[in-house]
Amino acid sequence: MEEIIEHPVAEGMEERKRSETSSFLESLSEHRSTQSNTHGSTQSSQRLLAYSDALISIIATVMILPVAHTKIGEDEELKESVQVLLTTKIGVYLMTFLIVTVAWAAHVRLFQVIVRIDDCLALLNLACMMLITFLPYTFSLMATFPENHLGILLFCGCVMVIGLIQALVVVYAFSRPFLLKEQIQTSEDLKVYKHHILQVILKVPVMCFLASIFSFIFLQLSYVLLAMVIFLPYISQFLKWCRSKATGEEETPDPEPLYQGSEPLSKERLEAFSDGVYAIVATLLILDICEDNVPDRETVKTVYNGSLVSALSDYGPEYLAYFGSFVTVGLLWFVHHSLFLHVTKTTRFMGLLNAFSLAFVGGLPLAYQLTHEFPRNSNNELEAIQVSCVIIFFAGINQLGIWVVALYSEQETLHRYVRYAGRDHIFMLAKLALYPCVALGTFFLTCILSQFSASIFHLMEITVPLAFLVLRLLVRVALAGLRLVFCPERAIPRTILEEEQDALVT
Amino acid sequence: MEEIIEHPVAEGMEERKRSETSSFLESLSEHRSTQSNTHGSTQSSQRLLAYSDALISIIATVMILPVAHTKIGEDEELKESVQVLLTTKIGVYLMTFLIVTVAWAAHVRLFQVIVRIDDCLALLNLACMMLITFLPYTFSLMATFPENHLGILLFCGCVMVIGLIQALVVVYAFSRPFLLKEQIQTSEDLKVYKHHILQVILKVPVMCFLASIFSFIFLQLSYVLLAMVIFLPYISQFLKWCRSKATGEEETPDPEPLYQGSEPLSKERLEAFSDGVYAIVATLLILDICEDNVPDRETVKTVYNGSLVSALSDYGPEYLAYFGSFVTVGLLWFVHHSLFLHVTKTTRFMGLLNAFSLAFVGGLPLAYQLTHEFPRNSNNELEAIQVSCVIIFFAGINQLGIWVVALYSEQETLHRYVRYAGRDHIFMLAKLALYPCVALGTFFLTCILSQFSASIFHLMEITVPLAFLVLRLLVRVALAGLRLVFCPERAIPRTILEEEQDALVT
Repeated sequence: MEEIIEHPVAEGMEERKRSETSSFLESLSEHRSTQSNTHGSTQSSQRLLAYSDALISIIATVMILPVAHTKIGEDEELKESVQVLLTTKIGVYLMTFLIVTVAWAAHVRLFQVIVRIDDCLALLNLACMMLITFLPYTFSLMATFPENHLGILLFCGCVMVIGLIQALVVVYAFSRPFLLKEQIQTSEDLKVYKHHILQVILKVPVMCFLASIFSFIFLQLSYVLLAMVIFLPYISQFLKWCRSKATGEEETPDPEPLYQGSEPLSKERLEAFSDGVYAIVATLLILDICEDNVPDRETVKTVYNGSLVSALSDYGPEYLAYFGSFVTVGLLWFVHHSLFLHVTKTTRFMGLLNAFSLAFVGGLPLAYQLTHEFPRNSNNELEAIQVSCVIIFFAGINQLGIWVVALYSEQETLHRYVRYAGRDHIFMLAKLALYPCVALGTFFLTCILSQFSASIFHLMEITVPLAFLVLRLLVRVALAGLRLVFCPERAIPRTILEEEQDALVT
Repeated sequence: MEEIIEHPVAEGMEERKRSETSSFLESLSEHRSTQSNTHGSTQSSQRLLAYSDALISIIATVMILPVAHTKIGEDEELKESVQVLLTTKIGVYLMTFLIVTVAWAAHVRLFQVIVRIDDCLALLNLACMMLITFLPYTFSLMATFPENHLGILLFCGCVMVIGLIQALVVVYAFSRPFLLKEQIQTSEDLKVYKHHILQVILKVPVMCFLASIFSFIFLQLSYVLLAMVIFLPYISQFLKWCRSKATGEEETPDPEPLYQGSEPLSKERLEAFSDGVYAIVATLLILDICEDNVPDRETVKTVYNGSLVSALSDYGPEYLAYFGSFVTVGLLWFVHHSLFLHVTKTTRFMGLLNAFSLAFVGGLPLAYQLTHEFPRNSNNELEAIQVSCVIIFFAGINQLGIWVVALYSEQETLHRYVRYAGRDHIFMLAKLALYPCVALGTFFLTCILSQFSASIFHLMEITVPLAFLVLRLLVRVALAGLRLVFCPERAIPRTILEEEQDALVT
């Protein structure tokens, strides 16, 4: 996205000095005339979008807290409680996450057309954000009272108002074409674009309107309608992608190439959104530590005879769980970061896989809560570790999925350097495969070894960064070996030993 | 910050086609040779820094939650409970916020020197982040058990490890000079820089080491030592600034201009950090709504005769409080955004004022909790509104402070267009003055009018965006009037009426 900043930086000392001597009123009118040329009140939309990304990603993830804070009695079997959780709260969390992601994707597409903002657009966008942050609440109402139509009415109401605000944004931006993308600004059929975009945007509110009417007649139908609304872009995109892969034909380009479903999502905003999710997940963990694990003054006095050390040593597993989880979140971010260094363009399907991956990352606070909650060597503890493994496995495998999808259409989506199976290519694959493999291995270990405990699991989590460094070494040695075997003449300048030393240093 | 991305985007179709036909092993070694020129494993540090900013800002803000969640009995007077809160939990929150901000500023300065990263630096940085997120916990231990030296030991331990990791980062980066800023890379005395930076970085761990030793001998002294460590950069900077303003002399430039206390903070990172704080504050509000205000199925059945609508209407004040608070956070962000559009460079003092402003913004969830918690027209309710006004006032006045400080040295810190009292200048002042004025006005209203209620307060909060639009109009009319009076010949091309119409449209 090109960035246009309102005020060009200092245009020469000469001019500055001249202006300094001019009077207030002179500068007043002088300023005015300069401004009308450069559209003075226009601003680069970059920061507004970064803020929106942060808001939306936090909203999407924060709904895991009610799940993680559900108290599980120690007497019950974990399996049952997990099933209870799965049916309602995790459902709410996942649905919220997907809905918010869809809203985010729509926001991204809208602001790929409108690339500059002014105060009015900024305020409208904030109003839009306010309603998006309210969506999780309407959704938890729906989940708690599925037979009452109030939840669905509130939800549809919010979506309709969001749609109307977005329509307003479009109308406003098209009345000031300098806010739009160059390509559209210079195009002649501005009106066609406007109508097309309005059509796309207003489709959702209209369907929500229908759903809210159906909610009075036949409630189930309105739920079906809503589900359709939410997943329509993804489903249609997936079907299109499958068809084009199956038939081997190129996708037929849409008549309006500037605002369509298959337009790639902005890579910067996808990264910003993902960063927000990883950051909030990492910090939710320490929040729990700070709220729950500072002992009471009274308790320390009466139970531990005033010894703070022994009081804190009781929290040992919590600290271990915290560091283990933080390392996992941090490294999953690291893999994501490495992956997107190689990506030039994100298709909508890659965006969907990314959303799935992030949804599982958002589940990590739940894993953290579960793994340190149960007594050692209980059956519950093992199952908690298995749940954690499943969460980590799916978070990792979806990242791997992004890579595989990117490789399918590597011409458009990947940098030149990683396309042809170079060293970076193999590194990347190794990095991506690490977490799914470790998670799968741990899962089977818990099935075999009954002595496996949460502490061992967290220690394993903490040692994974070392595995990354070992991986680097292994890949380098393997490549050097390959090169030596297949094209020895190229290997002469550097012997394997040097190669290894190099690897050790790096 | 200049941005260097590892892989140049597609270098011509010709070359791509050639490479496509080459074999796996050819590309393998070809890749290697290309890589050694461009330092293949180097990456732009931009995303790593954005992620760090998000993490640190969330950690700084999230500690308001234990404060906001403190239950206040309805029988007590708010004043007393607020005083109890003030002494411990708010203290913890503010200290955490400042400590984390100092750590963030150190991080910013470090990565203004190291502008590119590789995998190893990314992992080291994540380790550093892990320990920074642990600081709030050690701090709440210190606040709960001020007479026990365990808290201070843990805190110092964390800070020392952070310092050592940062020293490791510096040593690593200087052993690979291509990771450094151009200016330093090409300079001849690389070693001098390295030692200077190491000295600055290791000063804090050494003082913490001393503090931890003193904690065994004389605990109070170690607290004083810690406070000095934390505020030293700010205090010395403030004194320097005062002195230079008082004597009117230019500040004497340091011998090492590339890594010194007075070097301006990166504006991008200041914005990213602020965005993170505003975003988390806005979302903490809805989190409370979602956790507390979804009625129980049983309660609805028994208390409200199964009527969900009447159950929800009891939560009316909460919704109003939520929307009011969201609007306030959103508009404070909006003012901040407008302010930094005009700023080109942020001095350390501006950074300090920004940190104060953000610390008060972080207090808004507390204001939200207080204002909807008390029965209508009670004395507590009025005091809760006054607390909110104080928080909003200080958040706003510190933003105004940033602007005033920027005007003091406008040559370096402001864009040319706003320097000479043009229309943008007056707009900005009006925008910045709005919140402090409204907060102050409301505060005095609560003293006079005993019927003033939280609902009215929140309705006022919601209507402030309209005030922004009215402000635009007023400033334009006033300017047009001024121009007409003082230089009528310039006003001829546009009559006031046209001006007003123009203002109405925009």
